[in-house]
Amino acid sequence: MNFIGTHILSVSQFDRAAIEEIFVVADQMEPYAQRQKVTRVLEGAILGSMFFEPSTRTRVSFGCAFNLLGGEVRETTEVKASSISKGESFYDTARVLSGYSDVIVMRHEIEGSVDEFAQASRVPVLNGGDGTNEHPSQALLDLYTIRKELATQGKNIDNLRIALIGDLKYGRAVHSLCKLLTLYNNIHFTLISPPELALPASYIKAIKAAGHDIVESNDLQQSIRHADILYLTRTQEERFPSQSEADKYKGLFRLNQAIYTEFCEPNTVIMHPLPRDSRIDAKELDDDMNNNPNLAIFRQTDNGVLIRMALFALILDVTDQVDKHARNVNWYTAKRF
Amino acid sequence: MNFIGTHILSVSQFDRAAIEEIFVVADQMEPYAQRQKVTRVLEGAILGSMFFEPSTRTRVSFGCAFNLLGGEVRETTEVKASSISKGESFYDTARVLSGYSDVIVMRHEIEGSVDEFAQASRVPVLNGGDGTNEHPSQALLDLYTIRKELATQGKNIDNLRIALIGDLKYGRAVHSLCKLLTLYNNIHFTLISPPELALPASYIKAIKAAGHDIVESNDLQQSIRHADILYLTRTQEERFPSQSEADKYKGLFRLNQAIYTEFCEPNTVIMHPLPRDSRIDAKELDDDMNNNPNLAIFRQTDNGVLIRMALFALILDVTDQVDKHARNVNWYTAKRF
Amino acid sequence: MNFIGTHILSVSQFDRAAIEEIFVVADQMEPYAQRQKVTRVLEGAILGSMFFEPSTRTRVSFGCAFNLLGGEVRETTEVKASSISKGESFYDTARVLSGYSDVIVMRHEIEGSVDEFAQASRVPVLNGGDGTNEHPSQALLDLYTIRKELATQGKNIDNLRIALIGDLKYGRAVHSLCKLLTLYNNIHFTLISPPELALPASYIKAIKAAGHDIVESNDLQQSIRHADILYLTRTQEERFPSQSEADKYKGLFRLNQAIYTEFCEPNTVIMHPLPRDSRIDAKELDDDMNNNPNLAIFRQTDNGVLIRMALFALILDVTDQVDKHARNVNWYTAKRF
Repeated sequence: MNFIGTHILSVSQFDRAAIEEIFVVADQMEPYAQRQKVTRVLEGAILGSMFFEPSTRTRVSFGCAFNLLGGEVRETTEVKASSISKGESFYDTARVLSGYSDVIVMRHEIEGSVDEFAQASRVPVLNGGDGTNEHPSQALLDLYTIRKELATQGKNIDNLRIALIGDLKYGRAVHSLCKLLTLYNNIHFTLISPPELALPASYIKAIKAAGHDIVESNDLQQSIRHADILYLTRTQEERFPSQSEADKYKGLFRLNQAIYTEFCEPNTVIMHPLPRDSRIDAKELDDDMNNNPNLAIFRQTDNGVLIRMALFALILDVTDQVDKHARNVNWYTAKRF
Repeated sequence: MNFIGTHILSVSQFDRAAIEEIFVVADQMEPYAQRQKVTRVLEGAILGSMFFEPSTRTRVSFGCAFNLLGGEVRETTEVKASSISKGESFYDTARVLSGYSDVIVMRHEIEGSVDEFAQASRVPVLNGGDGTNEHPSQALLDLYTIRKELATQGKNIDNLRIALIGDLKYGRAVHSLCKLLTLYNNIHFTLISPPELALPASYIKAIKAAGHDIVESNDLQQSIRHADILYLTRTQEERFPSQSEADKYKGLFRLNQAIYTEFCEPNTVIMHPLPRDSRIDAKELDDDMNNNPNLAIFRQTDNGVLIRMALFALILDVTDQVDKHARNVNWYTAKRF
Repeated sequence: MNFIGTHILSVSQFDRAAIEEIFVVADQMEPYAQRQKVTRVLEGAILGSMFFEPSTRTRVSFGCAFNLLGGEVRETTEVKASSISKGESFYDTARVLSGYSDVIVMRHEIEGSVDEFAQASRVPVLNGGDGTNEHPSQALLDLYTIRKELATQGKNIDNLRIALIGDLKYGRAVHSLCKLLTLYNNIHFTLISPPELALPASYIKAIKAAGHDIVESNDLQQSIRHADILYLTRTQEERFPSQSEADKYKGLFRLNQAIYTEFCEPNTVIMHPLPRDSRIDAKELDDDMNNNPNLAIFRQTDNGVLIRMALFALILDVTDQVDKHARNVNWYTAKRF
């Protein structure tokens, strides 16, 4: 795949070779994200960060990734401050904003909005999440995390046993991850959710068509016994027709240290796209697991910076130059990773 | 005119020589805005971007312009996050914020607010729009666009035939553009609006006093026959006493490709200060014209970056240094302009 | 005190030697804040500016301070755009966000929230204000201003006579300043407030325990006769149970030029943490004093940049390197200070 100048809109764009290329560049970015080295390869470049739906994590992660490559970030954080509220089309917004930056990351609550925007944009666009549809950088960081975590156990993604748990209907992170995993060989999926929040049929069909196993279950404890990865999700309340409808499913599936100890293998890795809901009636992933070394949820978000740096470097064609502009960090840095 | 350290508050500050000076510097900025070259002339300088009224386009355009010169941007995007909501005077806000930056751009919904702010500021202030009053950088980019578009046809601003269409009462872009055009010779104005949204009498008087022609009309099709430039505007709903009052005027004057083909000259240039209202009941400028090469609306916004770079460079006295700090862009850049 | 890598959460962390160290570095920062020199010592470093409560002044001041050292700023300006609104714990927010930056400044309306956040953060955290609790950089800039203002009169902080006026109950700036002043010798406090808004008993007890004088008063004019410093505050309306409750205390104590001339010593310095409430029914510090040379309120905010630069430089261990990366400013700079 030729990344130069392309939009990143959907995980469907990637084959295994493209994914591997992204992951190799992500590995290359680690000394910069860890603040051992500084590069200024994108000094003078501008990222247009267009978040028309609330976000801190993804927005800051993208911005940080661009800054770590030496570039600047110009941001919009809400739709009501934008011309879209005055009747402007995505076409116009895209034509205008793409004159202001070298690359754009966009989030919007409407499915397909980012595609529409990208078609009119004069610069490459990265999808930072369009409603329940796609969130490709999240799927890539999840897969990259799986690969890294399994590597420490001498395993790789082929033959993975993964349990997806919780709201599998509205969780776009789960959807995109499923699409990516189907590219690999012999994946064993365990889908644990209330029937009403099951993984949509189209995803199940695609997984089966690619020759992978699926077990569907309504019983958390019995279904997590033989998994390399547990991937938990919160109930995506904001996607439900009403709060009371969402509340029905709150706290149905909960993982805590006691359950983990009794039912999981000793090396089972725990992932979550975050935020996890820590309110007393939710707690799908209990904070009594915070010191469990297999809890990979913060390594996921750290990896997100690497993946986003890699995407920027590939799209803007600077992977070869990153290390040439490098110097050592000259300020105090915490041991963080 | 000596630009160094001055506030840019109103188009009334400029004579033809000053405007020409700005336009020459804007031309100089093109390789930087087109991402052929990078300059870092303002590295270490800070722009205070104080938008106390919603804006994406103007805010990002100013920020981008400052970044392209190498400077940093610190932003405020809403009044409720500011001390003004705790009873602070513009005087105090200005005294404080001007200690944080080298230059400030400010937008506020109250007419005259930016003047009041500038009087107390310790650094140069650019008016990014104060209510229905002034928006000088918009007027400059409009005039710069007119000049550029006409130049390709071997014409210049003198003797221009321009039709201003739509809400001429509340559209500050129109007001400021009229003021600038009166500085030139023999301008033919056609004003097309509902009587209730006519250009205010003071502007008409000033145009006539400067010796230019005015024709007022309520008929779009017959009035656009002999124009070099059509300048369309949306109904400025947010300035109306009520939504229902604004709705009366929605969609009254509409330009689309069929009308253009039948009634306009083949080279008539179409401008709009944007956003255009693409909702079905508005559509003052139909998107079936998006591929018309005479549609200059996105060249306008591109030119906005050049004009804002020029203003910063002139005010901060670095025009002579810009090219000295230049190097070639080292990342992928789209063909955009 | 070793500043490298530490959190700055409370003024209780500091002894006199630590404060003196901060003030010496703040003095060193003056040519950079005054835009005589540029340093790029933190080029490549990222400040995470996490303001979960409205703020312009403090947020921009911190961001500007970091930019002046050459670093980048990634911001969040409201809680509703954050995962906290989806039930995320401070622990999770901190673990995630601390992977994105080299240092964090945080403001949140909940007392103790910043402490909780800092415990989970993997990078140093500065408290930018947690409810009515602490706002240490404000207290430091206030004390630094007192020191600088008195120095011009040949006095120092020991033996200071200070009158604290207005809402002494909810004003966290006052609370933190009182804590710092107790570290010095022989401070004479005059506390002027309505009885219901008196300084909390715990502060009074601590001041007395440290051997300082306290006079409490309900009479502004008679109580400001022998003060080196008048420190006025606005009624912190947003902390009151209701607006009507807050309104009872509005405008009770007002200082203007006539009162100052009649009752103050000629060199009495006037301070205020800002914003001051300039609405007609409030006006605790009248704007007829704006040209009084003893009005130090804007020197306070200017000093805030110096203090915040000093804290960043100390925490990130670059004080020795700042001047090595320095060059002269190459653009127009106003005489501001």
